[in-house]
Amino acid sequence: MGIIVQKYGGTSVGNPERIMNVANRIIATKEKGNSVITVVSAMGDSTDELLALANAITKNPSHREMDMLLATGEQVSIALLSMAIKEKGYEVVSLTGAQAGIYTDNTHKKAKITRIDNRRLKKEIDAGKIIIVAGFQGKTESGEITTLGRGGSDTTAVALAAAIKADVCEIYTDVDGVYTSDPRLVLDAKKLPFVSYDEMLELASLGALVLQTRAVEYAKQHNVKVCVRSSFNNNEGTIVEEGSVMEKIRLVSGVAHDLDVAKITIYGVPDNPGIAGNIFRGLADNAINVDMIVQSNPRGSINDISFTGHNEDKDKAMEIIDKLTPQIGSEGVKVRGNLAKISIVGAGMQSNPGVAASMFEALAKAGINIELISTSEIKISCILELEKAKIAVQVIHDKFKLSEIED
Amino acid sequence: MGIIVQKYGGTSVGNPERIMNVANRIIATKEKGNSVITVVSAMGDSTDELLALANAITKNPSHREMDMLLATGEQVSIALLSMAIKEKGYEVVSLTGAQAGIYTDNTHKKAKITRIDNRRLKKEIDAGKIIIVAGFQGKTESGEITTLGRGGSDTTAVALAAAIKADVCEIYTDVDGVYTSDPRLVLDAKKLPFVSYDEMLELASLGALVLQTRAVEYAKQHNVKVCVRSSFNNNEGTIVEEGSVMEKIRLVSGVAHDLDVAKITIYGVPDNPGIAGNIFRGLADNAINVDMIVQSNPRGSINDISFTGHNEDKDKAMEIIDKLTPQIGSEGVKVRGNLAKISIVGAGMQSNPGVAASMFEALAKAGINIELISTSEIKISCILELEKAKIAVQVIHDKFKLSEIED
Repeated sequence: MGIIVQKYGGTSVGNPERIMNVANRIIATKEKGNSVITVVSAMGDSTDELLALANAITKNPSHREMDMLLATGEQVSIALLSMAIKEKGYEVVSLTGAQAGIYTDNTHKKAKITRIDNRRLKKEIDAGKIIIVAGFQGKTESGEITTLGRGGSDTTAVALAAAIKADVCEIYTDVDGVYTSDPRLVLDAKKLPFVSYDEMLELASLGALVLQTRAVEYAKQHNVKVCVRSSFNNNEGTIVEEGSVMEKIRLVSGVAHDLDVAKITIYGVPDNPGIAGNIFRGLADNAINVDMIVQSNPRGSINDISFTGHNEDKDKAMEIIDKLTPQIGSEGVKVRGNLAKISIVGAGMQSNPGVAASMFEALAKAGINIELISTSEIKISCILELEKAKIAVQVIHDKFKLSEIED
Repeated sequence: MGIIVQKYGGTSVGNPERIMNVANRIIATKEKGNSVITVVSAMGDSTDELLALANAITKNPSHREMDMLLATGEQVSIALLSMAIKEKGYEVVSLTGAQAGIYTDNTHKKAKITRIDNRRLKKEIDAGKIIIVAGFQGKTESGEITTLGRGGSDTTAVALAAAIKADVCEIYTDVDGVYTSDPRLVLDAKKLPFVSYDEMLELASLGALVLQTRAVEYAKQHNVKVCVRSSFNNNEGTIVEEGSVMEKIRLVSGVAHDLDVAKITIYGVPDNPGIAGNIFRGLADNAINVDMIVQSNPRGSINDISFTGHNEDKDKAMEIIDKLTPQIGSEGVKVRGNLAKISIVGAGMQSNPGVAASMFEALAKAGINIELISTSEIKISCILELEKAKIAVQVIHDKFKLSEIED
């Protein structure tokens, strides 16, 4: 009993039959006495179809017009889902992002939500209606249609939950929740009943794409309780919320992996100010995403700088570094592709020394060499050979007894 | 040099290639020094595809949600057309009906335009931008999305032309303009350089579907000069405007035909007040559209009442009339299907006696019997056998020398 915000992705509303299924889920939630606000994405491939149309006209479409175009995808979904709910005899109203009071800045294609005017939402809730909101979109103060970019619909759901003080924001996806590791890689991976915002942030940024980083950040900032669960069954899912209980219990919540890693090491870099800035500005200007950066100082005033990125970017990155070499005065550069990044995440590790050591021991025992290490307060990442990745995940998962987590 | 409103239908923007063609036309108009506001419909079959989706979910969709759904069709068109124009280096902005300031009443699926707030349009014109507006849609004062129903995009164009005091409203279609008769039926049919609003209204309601009746009414009311022309060539088209010059010159502007006509005659109806009301209320309540109504009084206080409608409605109409017979006290009823209605339209006939006589003479000379006659100030319609329709149109076209009209 309360206010529940739900979000369903494009696959869940991919055809009329699935839309009817989602309608049934919404109605079941309503029937339990809850007020329901549901956020939906565009149907299945419809966004790709719109992009193909635009692509047939121009290779360089105006961002404003792209938003005008893409926003129609979610508008179709909300209309159809509302019809399905109405067909079953329930009062319902669909709202575009603009109608739902979602205001954004002017950055077309990746607008940020600036405020939510919740009056319309409150009015419809008070009238007892189920509300269906178009995800991924909003409007500027001057009435332009904007889209929120990657992860937009998750963010819409969390933002609405915050604006309406919902009891929970349920994110429906094609997996049961957040796992201790990828279940396709680690057979005894367990679903986590709870994770903290920070753990979820690290897991999301490490490739556990059940929930967009941006939505987690928004949830953390506004203290929105999020539940990640499957739209194909009634399992309980994973609750994402602030909480100290589980941090004490669990040192490590999960093992994440990224199987597309290349490493570049620039060695013999003079220890002058501004050199790192030069290097990474050069890479950024060429749209090369850099993940980990590690600087070590093996020989006093001479540094080695290593960074990782995607395999596909490594040649271009080398080109850029080669050009910069005279300017930075480095001795040389080495590149290595086909690596993997294995990370452990756990809010508990902040206050528990020895977690890193345990991870390294597990890898050493399995004969796996570590190429690079990087740590944050609640995460430890190791770069290692791609072919060792699967066994690495398994031994770490075993080491921290993650298969014994109670669901 | 001035402000030109253009409207392109769904076929004209049916695929990316055609969208590029429309973009070129708009740019050519702009290059002549004009400000251009272009109204577009949804791409080709996209409305049908949306309807099929809705139909897969419910047989009885909410009107509000249908508007939410269908409005996306035009929104896709305006985005793509704007991208095409921008690709060619011109400044352009797309506007939904709501953004263009088109306000309507609350009648979803067939909303009427109540007012236009032209500030945004003026601002963009002053900034030198080409404006692309989604046809067929508007918003209510409370921000609900509405559609205008049949003929909506033509009406959008005419209404914007009125609101912005455009020099002309060009309606692009797949024919060259308004013809003296259907060119598929009458080989020497000629394109009319001008028609008056009233003539266009009669021609439109008689089946010359180059321009929707409702748009003509709006144009007449606000004195908007409309030009009907082809989007496939640069021919001059037909100007629709008020004007006495051509009314003096032309007695008859065109011959129209309707090939789906049935006639029902109720004979021996007592001349009591309220009987006609009873009959036609009964038909209206059963959604049977009645076209011509003729009451004659061959035998003093006993009337014959004839009316025409579509062939497909005639059985249902008979059923209703049969039920009403005891109540109206009529002697009997006769039905006849497979008839045609041939009409002549001309603003000049008001002040020129003998036009009707000429029409009847032409038909008589061709041995064609007239079943029913109905006249208005600028129109004369005759009901005759369907198989005589083609020759009837031709002899009337010849009689009034319509093939000699100068383009």
